[in-house]
Amino acid sequence: MNENTYISVIGAGRCTDEVRATAHELGELIAARGWILVCGGLSGVMEAAAQGAREAGGHTVGILPGLDRAGANPYIETALVTGIGQMRNSLVVQNGEVIIAVEGRYGTLSEIALALKSGRPVIAIGTWKDIPGVKPASDPSQAVALAAEFLDQGND
Amino acid sequence: MNENTYISVIGAGRCTDEVRATAHELGELIAARGWILVCGGLSGVMEAAAQGAREAGGHTVGILPGLDRAGANPYIETALVTGIGQMRNSLVVQNGEVIIAVEGRYGTLSEIALALKSGRPVIAIGTWKDIPGVKPASDPSQAVALAAEFLDQGND
Amino acid sequence: MNENTYISVIGAGRCTDEVRATAHELGELIAARGWILVCGGLSGVMEAAAQGAREAGGHTVGILPGLDRAGANPYIETALVTGIGQMRNSLVVQNGEVIIAVEGRYGTLSEIALALKSGRPVIAIGTWKDIPGVKPASDPSQAVALAAEFLDQGND
Amino acid sequence: MNENTYISVIGAGRCTDEVRATAHELGELIAARGWILVCGGLSGVMEAAAQGAREAGGHTVGILPGLDRAGANPYIETALVTGIGQMRNSLVVQNGEVIIAVEGRYGTLSEIALALKSGRPVIAIGTWKDIPGVKPASDPSQAVALAAEFLDQGND
Repeated sequence: MNENTYISVIGAGRCTDEVRATAHELGELIAARGWILVCGGLSGVMEAAAQGAREAGGHTVGILPGLDRAGANPYIETALVTGIGQMRNSLVVQNGEVIIAVEGRYGTLSEIALALKSGRPVIAIGTWKDIPGVKPASDPSQAVALAAEFLDQGND
Repeated sequence: MNENTYISVIGAGRCTDEVRATAHELGELIAARGWILVCGGLSGVMEAAAQGAREAGGHTVGILPGLDRAGANPYIETALVTGIGQMRNSLVVQNGEVIIAVEGRYGTLSEIALALKSGRPVIAIGTWKDIPGVKPASDPSQAVALAAEFLDQGND
Repeated sequence: MNENTYISVIGAGRCTDEVRATAHELGELIAARGWILVCGGLSGVMEAAAQGAREAGGHTVGILPGLDRAGANPYIETALVTGIGQMRNSLVVQNGEVIIAVEGRYGTLSEIALALKSGRPVIAIGTWKDIPGVKPASDPSQAVALAAEFLDQGND
Repeated sequence: MNENTYISVIGAGRCTDEVRATAHELGELIAARGWILVCGGLSGVMEAAAQGAREAGGHTVGILPGLDRAGANPYIETALVTGIGQMRNSLVVQNGEVIIAVEGRYGTLSEIALALKSGRPVIAIGTWKDIPGVKPASDPSQAVALAAEFLDQGND
């Protein structure tokens, strides 16, 4: 099953309803493509994206900062505990072939930077879209279309 | 889905056919209980146990030492890359409610010790069964029965 | 000796002679304040800053991504190996009370973001000085003066 | 300064006065050889060994499980915070060329196993001296003499 495609969705643990709706739609579209959604497993963008993915019949993986699996949001299918705090951001990034950011603050920025350093494509809706190297997207549809393009290039 | 039960199977990356058969049977019995099998994702005991679990319709998670998902054995359903080498042993342990060792060498011993330190039940078939605190099992059936007992106690 | 003050200097492993001169001066000024310099232990900005600190009689700690202590630059007094690759960026940040960036690329940006997320003061000379929350400095003297202000506030 | 020799001393955070005296003597002898003592930075064996080393004019490094440098014992000269809990055991081991255990429980056993897996010499006074691959020592003098032999072999 290792031919599965994993896409990491990153964003803040607290967000507005509007951002939540965007993340939910993004999760749906990721599931519709048959991709597995990887995230940090907590609330906010992570939860909304995972909910969208699960409701669309997709699979979700959450990589938690703590050691208690109960800390995962209810839409995480496979929850991994780590106990390494913010260092788990690096695991979230390294487990996705493409990274899609939905708004987000400094934690999200750290993940974007780690992803760019490791040569992964990074797509951002909102906050950090102007960081050099990041591909901006105006909405989830465009973000997923861009991700598909990156994956196609990688498979050539 | 966070009510799932995760059981970690640990053991060496290279092993005899006999040990492989034991690990395979252990994987089957874990899947038959409806538990998710967690392991280090590589070959040997890890592969045989994952194969047994998958062939019995179960789910498997592999936590890899490296950064290349292709390093996972073909029976790993959800493969997580880490890039932290032997430190991933700690993640394998922390992601299981009960740890079952099948033979194994020093890597396995490190996982047994980390599990005991964190208060997790450890069951061993073979090599390290005489380490104080480890519960010895003569075969996979007994190991799984012991694991079920531990889980029942934890749920009281 | 735990009353020592640790300051993390971050920046790229390859840099121009001009950036190197800036990092060298920064290291000298950090040592002159009696602060211990923490860095990633490799070449470029890390080496120039460590050299400056050592030549001014200061102490240096290098936190290496790999497992070979010989990978440290010759101006690292205490070299720590980690074997966790880019995740060691988080350790570099968490071991400094104030973080000072000299130019740098994505690795440096990841460290800036992790530092801001953890509430640490971040001072940047060059590239990333316009990231919200970062305090820009035009040269090493101003950077060290700003760091001293932050430390004074923290000790109130 | 990267030609320094680092020796890791491992053992429990709580211990008897007798074990403490053994660890203290071990620290003195390590310092007398000019080796840098690495440990987990906390109390018990770690503190006694660090105290012995410092009182004999040696250098000490403590690699802490938490994020608060104030958690280090007062005899740690260079304290590194990690925030990765028991996974820092792996860093303690990887930073020593030879590992010397003084009694200890499961945390110590995990370090012994990780050290043996990575091919490092392990010398034990007490508890775990009968683990296959471990070189037993009856007291600190013998332990340090054995460590010196290992280092000589490594330098051939």
